[in-house]
Amino acid sequence: MNGTKLEPAVALAELQETKPDRVTIVLLSGDMDRAMAAFIIATGAAAMGMRVTIFFTFWGLNTIRRHGESSAAKDWLRRLFGFLNKGGADTLPLSKFHFGGLGTSMMKRVMRQHRMPGVPELIQTAQDLGVQFIACTTTMGLMGISKDTLIDGVDQLAGVTTYLAEAKEGNVNLFI
Amino acid sequence: MNGTKLEPAVALAELQETKPDRVTIVLLSGDMDRAMAAFIIATGAAAMGMRVTIFFTFWGLNTIRRHGESSAAKDWLRRLFGFLNKGGADTLPLSKFHFGGLGTSMMKRVMRQHRMPGVPELIQTAQDLGVQFIACTTTMGLMGISKDTLIDGVDQLAGVTTYLAEAKEGNVNLFI
Amino acid sequence: MNGTKLEPAVALAELQETKPDRVTIVLLSGDMDRAMAAFIIATGAAAMGMRVTIFFTFWGLNTIRRHGESSAAKDWLRRLFGFLNKGGADTLPLSKFHFGGLGTSMMKRVMRQHRMPGVPELIQTAQDLGVQFIACTTTMGLMGISKDTLIDGVDQLAGVTTYLAEAKEGNVNLFI
Repeated sequence: MNGTKLEPAVALAELQETKPDRVTIVLLSGDMDRAMAAFIIATGAAAMGMRVTIFFTFWGLNTIRRHGESSAAKDWLRRLFGFLNKGGADTLPLSKFHFGGLGTSMMKRVMRQHRMPGVPELIQTAQDLGVQFIACTTTMGLMGISKDTLIDGVDQLAGVTTYLAEAKEGNVNLFI
Repeated sequence: MNGTKLEPAVALAELQETKPDRVTIVLLSGDMDRAMAAFIIATGAAAMGMRVTIFFTFWGLNTIRRHGESSAAKDWLRRLFGFLNKGGADTLPLSKFHFGGLGTSMMKRVMRQHRMPGVPELIQTAQDLGVQFIACTTTMGLMGISKDTLIDGVDQLAGVTTYLAEAKEGNVNLFI
Repeated sequence: MNGTKLEPAVALAELQETKPDRVTIVLLSGDMDRAMAAFIIATGAAAMGMRVTIFFTFWGLNTIRRHGESSAAKDWLRRLFGFLNKGGADTLPLSKFHFGGLGTSMMKRVMRQHRMPGVPELIQTAQDLGVQFIACTTTMGLMGISKDTLIDGVDQLAGVTTYLAEAKEGNVNLFI
């Protein structure tokens, strides 16, 4: 009886002790500043030994699309959308002061001067540190983005259920 | 003495076992893409048996305002604001490529072609699955939005304390 | 043996009982509405006895820059950026309907009429309630913002590791 009473508590303690800290990030934004924040948090957490997963959806998918890759969609509507909504981690605009590209270039120049990594370098570091990249299938379909136009190293194409299964175990769950 | 020692652990274990997974979402944005993401996560979580609450504040209130409903405020300032800031789940603009409505229409057409639910349908599904809708009283007052201009099925009008009481028990708390 | 078995469970129970509820907020946005939401949540949580930390990064740093303070950077690029990107909690624009300042003024006038605190007052209340303010060193460098141009009462200048150490113990972690 005593043993029976103890079991759930001990099991719980063991469960908690062995569970590594987890971070999940939904990256919806395609803005350079928000993407930088996402990858700085992701690489920082991975370097601290946390398990990190980024779910790319809507404009956030642009960060993991290959540069200049056009839409694979057959219908003109999504092709047009894919044309307007250019992909590539090095082409993301600032959310403020983009000024048709001038402000964003200025920020990138400051970053180079201070030897700060840009989004493409941060993505590489994140992949090197084992950050899981998951591309949202629902929005890929919506925006006419196919798997072969994404960069290498995207671990999984999945939907909201996969995200939630991971996030409900997460210590830090951010929507960016 | 043994029993005394056991109590907190057992109570804790029972507490944890019976506590359902919870998701809270603060929806501040009135953009179609962000609202879609919020409702896709909310309906997904509810379908997985999680308890889900959405707190609508600022522009996020537009998603639960009835279409074309004008502001109930008596002062001209908030009436003007209410006029400019139109409500209705079917009128939300994209955060990018809205192009005066053209881009947003294009996206909606792609969604219809692929039989993907739009924000109005997602709201209905969320309500059917028991997602709690809470409208933020503070910003309702600020924006001249009265209860009778909101859609049916809003469960509660409340402030930040209600949100925090729910969020601190949440497994997944997102700000969108 | 019995005692050995009990220890982790009891330790765990005690750990959980003594750990206060924690809220962390990354404030990346410099928009008035998002900043208001951040500070309303922060002050609400602090008033409920929760431990609250706000990490100011990118445009969010504008909320804790002194009004009209120019950039301390020596290079013209960051000085220009600092000039364009004005600081000061009372100068934040709305994310929507800013209309070159007109919409934002209108919103502020409604707030005054209804005796609602603005961002400067909310910041003061947050500091009075012991909310921890941490300014992100990485983006300060990037945007040419020096410590002496920040308001008084910023508790710490730190990077992502400090944020993550706090967030992984947090009950509610938001990215705004």
